[in-house]
Amino acid sequence: MNASTVILQLICPDRPGLVSELSGWIAENDGNIRHADHHTDSGAGLFLSRIEWDLQGFALPRELIASSIIALAKRLDGKAQLHFSDEWPRVAIFVSKQSHCLLDLLWRVRSGELSMKVPVVISNHMDLEPLCQEFGVAFQYVPIEPGYKLEAEKTMLDCLSKKKIELAVLAKYMQVLSDDFLKKFPNVINIHHSFLPAFKGAQPYHRAWERGVKLIGATAHYVTEDLDDGPIIEQTIAHVSHRDEVDDLIRKGRDTERIALARALRLHLRRQVMVYRGRTAVFA
Amino acid sequence: MNASTVILQLICPDRPGLVSELSGWIAENDGNIRHADHHTDSGAGLFLSRIEWDLQGFALPRELIASSIIALAKRLDGKAQLHFSDEWPRVAIFVSKQSHCLLDLLWRVRSGELSMKVPVVISNHMDLEPLCQEFGVAFQYVPIEPGYKLEAEKTMLDCLSKKKIELAVLAKYMQVLSDDFLKKFPNVINIHHSFLPAFKGAQPYHRAWERGVKLIGATAHYVTEDLDDGPIIEQTIAHVSHRDEVDDLIRKGRDTERIALARALRLHLRRQVMVYRGRTAVFA
Amino acid sequence: MNASTVILQLICPDRPGLVSELSGWIAENDGNIRHADHHTDSGAGLFLSRIEWDLQGFALPRELIASSIIALAKRLDGKAQLHFSDEWPRVAIFVSKQSHCLLDLLWRVRSGELSMKVPVVISNHMDLEPLCQEFGVAFQYVPIEPGYKLEAEKTMLDCLSKKKIELAVLAKYMQVLSDDFLKKFPNVINIHHSFLPAFKGAQPYHRAWERGVKLIGATAHYVTEDLDDGPIIEQTIAHVSHRDEVDDLIRKGRDTERIALARALRLHLRRQVMVYRGRTAVFA
Amino acid sequence: MNASTVILQLICPDRPGLVSELSGWIAENDGNIRHADHHTDSGAGLFLSRIEWDLQGFALPRELIASSIIALAKRLDGKAQLHFSDEWPRVAIFVSKQSHCLLDLLWRVRSGELSMKVPVVISNHMDLEPLCQEFGVAFQYVPIEPGYKLEAEKTMLDCLSKKKIELAVLAKYMQVLSDDFLKKFPNVINIHHSFLPAFKGAQPYHRAWERGVKLIGATAHYVTEDLDDGPIIEQTIAHVSHRDEVDDLIRKGRDTERIALARALRLHLRRQVMVYRGRTAVFA
Repeated sequence: MNASTVILQLICPDRPGLVSELSGWIAENDGNIRHADHHTDSGAGLFLSRIEWDLQGFALPRELIASSIIALAKRLDGKAQLHFSDEWPRVAIFVSKQSHCLLDLLWRVRSGELSMKVPVVISNHMDLEPLCQEFGVAFQYVPIEPGYKLEAEKTMLDCLSKKKIELAVLAKYMQVLSDDFLKKFPNVINIHHSFLPAFKGAQPYHRAWERGVKLIGATAHYVTEDLDDGPIIEQTIAHVSHRDEVDDLIRKGRDTERIALARALRLHLRRQVMVYRGRTAVFA
Repeated sequence: MNASTVILQLICPDRPGLVSELSGWIAENDGNIRHADHHTDSGAGLFLSRIEWDLQGFALPRELIASSIIALAKRLDGKAQLHFSDEWPRVAIFVSKQSHCLLDLLWRVRSGELSMKVPVVISNHMDLEPLCQEFGVAFQYVPIEPGYKLEAEKTMLDCLSKKKIELAVLAKYMQVLSDDFLKKFPNVINIHHSFLPAFKGAQPYHRAWERGVKLIGATAHYVTEDLDDGPIIEQTIAHVSHRDEVDDLIRKGRDTERIALARALRLHLRRQVMVYRGRTAVFA
Repeated sequence: MNASTVILQLICPDRPGLVSELSGWIAENDGNIRHADHHTDSGAGLFLSRIEWDLQGFALPRELIASSIIALAKRLDGKAQLHFSDEWPRVAIFVSKQSHCLLDLLWRVRSGELSMKVPVVISNHMDLEPLCQEFGVAFQYVPIEPGYKLEAEKTMLDCLSKKKIELAVLAKYMQVLSDDFLKKFPNVINIHHSFLPAFKGAQPYHRAWERGVKLIGATAHYVTEDLDDGPIIEQTIAHVSHRDEVDDLIRKGRDTERIALARALRLHLRRQVMVYRGRTAVFA
Repeated sequence: MNASTVILQLICPDRPGLVSELSGWIAENDGNIRHADHHTDSGAGLFLSRIEWDLQGFALPRELIASSIIALAKRLDGKAQLHFSDEWPRVAIFVSKQSHCLLDLLWRVRSGELSMKVPVVISNHMDLEPLCQEFGVAFQYVPIEPGYKLEAEKTMLDCLSKKKIELAVLAKYMQVLSDDFLKKFPNVINIHHSFLPAFKGAQPYHRAWERGVKLIGATAHYVTEDLDDGPIIEQTIAHVSHRDEVDDLIRKGRDTERIALARALRLHLRRQVMVYRGRTAVFA
């Protein structure tokens, strides 16, 4: 059941015959398809496909698949991404002081729910170092002194580079990454503690309480240069009532946050998310 | 079980002894309390109470209760509202072209879920007149010609007055009521087809699709002069995916809209909602 | 967007190359695939596929597609079903006294949410005849006298046959259909007012109240000879509390029932449901 | 905000004047009521009340409240329970091999969500000892050898007694406690991994998968001698589809389990749950 698979994500202009062409190529090479999902965005004229097949028995050796995929994508005038299920991404988790998301992610990694490696946790506070030690994960303290944010980000980028990090997860990291950081390291998932696009920016629970909403939410999304406007992967909600104070919203929100983030990350790691035109297709 | 009850809603400055004072007054008059709910907003220093007791056996005759309540509220420096469960409010339903909320409300009235009378349905289009006829409800056509909105609103206000309407329900009425209208008739519930405060204003489903959200919502709220900013009574949500077009959001949204509106209206009719400081306490 | 499509549902033993073979056959005939969903039940060794493509531009004329599909299915040792999106099924709705599901379905047909024809409503009570008249739907009264159930069912079967009914929907029909009926007319969807398999059989809300559950549910399922044990299509839930009496459960349940039934029926009508081994795959 | 409070839970035969009598007694003693919730079960003729008031400023000294409450309950022919919010219960957590609920509870205790002490974790396996060490909680290994269950339970009961435990929480403890154990220590909360009363007993996820349900659930309940039939405190659900294998149900279920258990335990610890006639009233 956990045998290695090849996962192809392809986006290209829509036209008849694409499913046949993709699956035909896999069949010719004796590939056994496990999952095949397609989506046509007719407004945009785009075809999105995610196909997963067994590596074992596939005629092309592992190291030759990429070049074939590149040729295939070129022929279809599209863009392709190739992944192997047995190559676990190296993920850095960014945190500040709150522990709930970090603990949740580390536990899910340990229990096998999240197929990723965590070479480092980066934080602008020391509070969560003991938790990282308990889980045997390296902890890098990068304080953000007023006026020295660029220097701090440079330290982080060096760390990401040295540790060969593919993805950064902001698990309640209470700093905004600069545009420059994101240009150099664009692969970032964030958990925002509101039901976006409601309550973008700071203190969403306080503002939700002020507004008197009856549901609060959490949103896991890819980070872009426009704050809280990146492609949404997952959203969860919780009921609140007039009896709930701001502290209750924060408490209830912790459960929605960690579940939204964990689901989104799992979808990403299994390569079930495709991003296009500021939105996501989630093949769940 | 459906015997008549008296319902008191009271808001006053918080201080010790209030529950005792209220329930003591009812007990002295041989009242049998069915429900008693209280809420203290400690930030605002306010005490909110909703008490419901049997009319039968109560020592004060029905017509003398109001004056006693007024005296009680005055003594507590608060504001009180008094209702009798056997006096069904006269409610006008405002609609445009869409039928789902209107049909739902009329059916719930007929089936006994909503304890209200519907003396008139008011619309700026003729489309829903047949539906009203099927349910035996008067239909008043008040078109909104460009430049003649004030005249149209005057016609509506006359109708509300003549029909002795207590509450107006905007059941997908696609016009904005003027501030002047709301000053003259402030008791209005609206259903907005988004998860407020996200997507205030026009075409929320189109904008939700553009943003790529994973959940859509509906919000039933009291109408105030600030569009879509009134006190929220009820919110519901539905899951959407990349496969859903705008039309699918609209279709799925119809179910969330009619359920949020029906729940909110039922809560209002049972006098379970108290409004204060731009928000609601819902004693459900 | 609403152009006619061809929908193929196929179940066959799993082996490599099936997606390619199906999509290849469609591509060879110039078919433009709109949706393609597959599922492999590895435990059962089965491959399930649902493919939908444009009728327009397809090389095979409409009337020749079926024989090609039969040959294809035979070659794959599987079973296939073929549907055209512009051929709306003829559906009979069975009811007793409760109106909420019937009204909901008729409204959804009228508003275009459900692509089906309703040539007849069959009932063992007269209560809902006026509602059918309002919607212009034929109403057939078939009382179930004690000891004469077989005769009544024969009348119903004659009606289904005469009206060329493809599917029967039990929309709160409070009678159990006999095994004999189901042998002669097996294509039946039911809404059960509990979260199956909890509270099979009679009076689920009373028993849910007795048990003190905190959530109630509704289950839409295909009917089989084992009462309430048929393949589940859709389930919905609602929260309840100690304040809810049995009547409140019944009231809240009406909303879950009609939504579960409407969703299940829409999925069925769009041929998104495949039944196998007592369960369903729902390609939503 | 976290000042100490007194919490009274009272059940007695219903009659007029009870709210006044209770709140009057508190007012006479200068108590400032924070929360007052009442429920009348008219079928059973019972009145349930939970009142919480400030300890500070209350005229009766802490150690004299209990005897007054006893007298009050006697006068009303009822049963009362008295708690102080600053007296945190001593809770033992029972586990087997799975860590998700234990980790979740220990984290919530550490973060202040659950006001309780955990003097000991008891387990029939050694697996979770390291986790307890990380959180600085004593771990007691009590293996259940075939034929020696009574001896093992005696060891557990001794431990509970020695550690002055008030409540036991079965956080995925995969053993059934004997009737004898429950007679000696009846205050036990369990998390069952199904939507009770569906799938009582062993392997609910396997059976849910077999049945092809579209929702799975978890139920937190008080334990009684009838397995999985105790009063329900909280239920949560998660959506599943045909794509989910049994392992996916187990994985998704872990999130519903830990959330249902944490919510139920928090409600219990805040004395918001009242048990009567095999069911609960939850004043949330």
